[in-house]
Amino acid sequence: MKSDAEIAREARLQPITEIAAGLGLEADDLHLYGRHIAKIDPAALPPAAARKGKLVLVTAISPTPAGEGKTTTTIGLGDALNRIGRKTVICLREPSLGPCFGLKGGAAGGGYAQIVPMERINLHFTGDFHAISAAHNLLAAMVDNHLYWGNELGLDSRRITWRRVVDMNDRALRNLVVGLGGPRNGVPREGGFDITVASEVMAAFCLAKDFADLEARLSRMIVGFRRDRSAVTAADLKTSGAMCALLADAFMPNLVQTIGGSPALVHGGPFANIAHGCNSVVATEAGLGLGDIVVTEAGFGADLGAEKFLDIKCRQAGLSPDCAVVVATVRALKMHGGVAKDALGQENVETLKAGLANLGRHIENVKKYGLPVVVAVNHFTSDTAAEFAAVRDFCRERFGVEAISCSHWAHGAAGAEDLAHAVAAVLDAGAAAFRPLYADGLPLLDKIRTVATEIYGAADIAIDARLKSEIADYEAAGFGELPVCIAKTQYSFSANPDLRGAPSGHVLPVREVRLAAGAGFLVVICGEINTMPGLPRVPAAEHIGIDSAGRIVGLS
Amino acid sequence: MKSDAEIAREARLQPITEIAAGLGLEADDLHLYGRHIAKIDPAALPPAAARKGKLVLVTAISPTPAGEGKTTTTIGLGDALNRIGRKTVICLREPSLGPCFGLKGGAAGGGYAQIVPMERINLHFTGDFHAISAAHNLLAAMVDNHLYWGNELGLDSRRITWRRVVDMNDRALRNLVVGLGGPRNGVPREGGFDITVASEVMAAFCLAKDFADLEARLSRMIVGFRRDRSAVTAADLKTSGAMCALLADAFMPNLVQTIGGSPALVHGGPFANIAHGCNSVVATEAGLGLGDIVVTEAGFGADLGAEKFLDIKCRQAGLSPDCAVVVATVRALKMHGGVAKDALGQENVETLKAGLANLGRHIENVKKYGLPVVVAVNHFTSDTAAEFAAVRDFCRERFGVEAISCSHWAHGAAGAEDLAHAVAAVLDAGAAAFRPLYADGLPLLDKIRTVATEIYGAADIAIDARLKSEIADYEAAGFGELPVCIAKTQYSFSANPDLRGAPSGHVLPVREVRLAAGAGFLVVICGEINTMPGLPRVPAAEHIGIDSAGRIVGLS
Repeated sequence: MKSDAEIAREARLQPITEIAAGLGLEADDLHLYGRHIAKIDPAALPPAAARKGKLVLVTAISPTPAGEGKTTTTIGLGDALNRIGRKTVICLREPSLGPCFGLKGGAAGGGYAQIVPMERINLHFTGDFHAISAAHNLLAAMVDNHLYWGNELGLDSRRITWRRVVDMNDRALRNLVVGLGGPRNGVPREGGFDITVASEVMAAFCLAKDFADLEARLSRMIVGFRRDRSAVTAADLKTSGAMCALLADAFMPNLVQTIGGSPALVHGGPFANIAHGCNSVVATEAGLGLGDIVVTEAGFGADLGAEKFLDIKCRQAGLSPDCAVVVATVRALKMHGGVAKDALGQENVETLKAGLANLGRHIENVKKYGLPVVVAVNHFTSDTAAEFAAVRDFCRERFGVEAISCSHWAHGAAGAEDLAHAVAAVLDAGAAAFRPLYADGLPLLDKIRTVATEIYGAADIAIDARLKSEIADYEAAGFGELPVCIAKTQYSFSANPDLRGAPSGHVLPVREVRLAAGAGFLVVICGEINTMPGLPRVPAAEHIGIDSAGRIVGLS
Repeated sequence: MKSDAEIAREARLQPITEIAAGLGLEADDLHLYGRHIAKIDPAALPPAAARKGKLVLVTAISPTPAGEGKTTTTIGLGDALNRIGRKTVICLREPSLGPCFGLKGGAAGGGYAQIVPMERINLHFTGDFHAISAAHNLLAAMVDNHLYWGNELGLDSRRITWRRVVDMNDRALRNLVVGLGGPRNGVPREGGFDITVASEVMAAFCLAKDFADLEARLSRMIVGFRRDRSAVTAADLKTSGAMCALLADAFMPNLVQTIGGSPALVHGGPFANIAHGCNSVVATEAGLGLGDIVVTEAGFGADLGAEKFLDIKCRQAGLSPDCAVVVATVRALKMHGGVAKDALGQENVETLKAGLANLGRHIENVKKYGLPVVVAVNHFTSDTAAEFAAVRDFCRERFGVEAISCSHWAHGAAGAEDLAHAVAAVLDAGAAAFRPLYADGLPLLDKIRTVATEIYGAADIAIDARLKSEIADYEAAGFGELPVCIAKTQYSFSANPDLRGAPSGHVLPVREVRLAAGAGFLVVICGEINTMPGLPRVPAAEHIGIDSAGRIVGLS
């Protein structure tokens, strides 16, 4: 079997100017980054009124170690829609260097459902993440420089919340003491680094409607608090302008292609726990202007990814999605039913049926937003006909929803053609009536409770008086209209990662809240959330290199 | 008077493909980064045997607060050589973000002697520095990850020498304690960040002859020592391959243009104190293959910049320069003579004559390498005819060297035409007979002493027994053939920055030595050297932003 890298290398790429021409863009509308990558000049993008495309969200059941294939399904569906004559643009997040060198590998799809050139997309791409890191870290340097020169703004050095970022898995940077070495080397205080995708700059970058909105969001970002608990912002430090200068090029959406020749906009990549986990609004809107259909994905399972896509991204950007595709695999459903990982190769319809509760909850949830659903069953060779039939019957009988088997990983566009027809039929029927889960005006605490009960199946939330008072302070300061961004384990509807299937009656424990004033949401942390991953015992980096022909090897 | 940014903005840029065509390069030889920047594919570069260009080094007197204009002279001379019909390529270093947001501003020249597009060159450019930072920091993450997983290689956590880097002025990161927060968050130890230009990866990147050489240099890099003082390298940590993958694109030279339309290769930018301070060898060699003349510069005054260019870069790369241009200004020479900064506007021939000793020493020094010298007197409006005549007569009478007044800052290529004719005449005469200052086989201590006495005018060096024994250990380990890279103040021939003019009889105090096994030199630290600058009280960042037309403003 060929590796992803081999398949990508054998693909015959079109010049990116030709991919752009297929979208009605001319060479002058592009800023080329080599032969196969371009940024699209904002002046070339259709105005808001001309954005007529339909929006399809690809989401998934709760992830298991068996894997689902959300990114490959997004790419395969996009390729297949183009194959059946629907002009489709795929919108994805940019990969982070951290997982590339760690455990998970890149994020450019796999098999015959990949975006290319995969090495460049997985490594530095167009430098967007580096630009975001630089903007974030400039603000951090300005904070410590402000302390150094006398702290005119009166920041409490114990209450500085703005950390630094690096696009790397580096656990030793999680908790630091900075500013050591005496008076000439700064003011000692506790600090730390997050991975770049966890930066609030990343989240704001991805949610900003236009450059003016980005500048406003950067200005509002809170770096810390005074002793009286009043906030100090990037604007107070006169740094948001320089951050904008650093982000000016990065903010233009990136155009690449799939190995099937579909256009793909790959732009932005916020964390899916402390941020909202979707590609940039500007790229999605560009896709809606340039294509008839946009296929996009959101991080993690639908309880986290789709919820945030719908309640944060679509709400803030005024987007109205037309269809949701929920990706499942027979293997993962069997794990939700209780099968151990090493027994996944054997047919087990009964346990699969138990695991369908997870899929069912996600379908129900997405329907609460007024969206029609198609289930994509990403095919593995070990799947049996009886197992697929159990999934199909469950979806049809319980929810009136079609479950379509697809094999884009092995067969590219042809393998997702049935799925494409099913999605196209839903779009043509026009049955979507999108509504967010809760109104802007609902109190913050009730927003958290609504997501917990309506989406997670929880009986209630648990939150102590100190956090309640913190939330009340944010409401008093005018942040009560913001949506909530809940960070919890992706492996379960509950806060307990070992609770597979569709648990209910549990209580969601709120451990911490953080105001992301620039991103425009309240982060609600429930359980252990790590914003700086570590490398494994044998990092992927050990096997990455350059071969004798000068090609990058070892990326997956 | 127009600002640098205004002049740059008004320049009519040619498509970079046209600039490349002037060098015989076709569109397929380029990897475009937008319309005005390209990387040159190594396959398109002339082979070593076909590199027939003449090499001109632009260096300077010891810098003063009055300024010299080495970069503008390099650009102006290149433009003027092209104007008089000599096919010339300019080779410069890439700017760092640190000074852009700090005090000094960018490094793309000034006035009518600039490289463009200045905003992009000064900000992220083609991402080379970000790639170098990522490669450097991946190795750092692998070091701490190795400690975390049990430290099989037996690194002494107190003797880890590999720090982290960021392309930012951020003094609070100079000295840190990393790995805090308990066993899950790493192993606590002292660490710190340098600015990216001070990375050994940067130095190796700039000295590597080809990609295989770069990989070998990365493999040799020492990250720290065991308790028995044996070294642990990047190869031991199996990280050099992944570092190469991160550097693959960055290693291709960047092509831009001057506002006069000359081709400029802007690639790499190592610190001029703990590293050698010149652009990449691959860019210089590319220029020598593509043009008839390459004009390049080295950091700081000739005692540091030219010495390292000649004894490190030319020695390692086998380059043989044909002419040196020493840049001086009447104002700076007056400061060397003792005039205070606020009295520089008044004619003062006598003090100027005293300051000429600094210029004279630099001319003598460069001649020791067998190079013919031309002095460029970078014109300021306050300079008087009598002052210029004093410089001209001094150079002619003492050294048989021509001093040429030039005004490229105000007048572009036309302002440096006389200088171009003088340099062309030197090149046509072919009198250069380059030889490095010392032989590879000279013991390391004698190499340090040779530079100190021959170039700095010192009577001797002062070095304690501990450092002598450290140097002996390096020689025993096989590093005795390396050149030395001396880090001392750029403001004086001595280690005392206040000693202007041409002091002699002083003693050079060696405070520390560091083996840069990958870069391929022994760093010899004499005096206070800061590898992570801080921001000033009012950083330039406060005035940088985006105007209503979407243009970046405030960069200088």
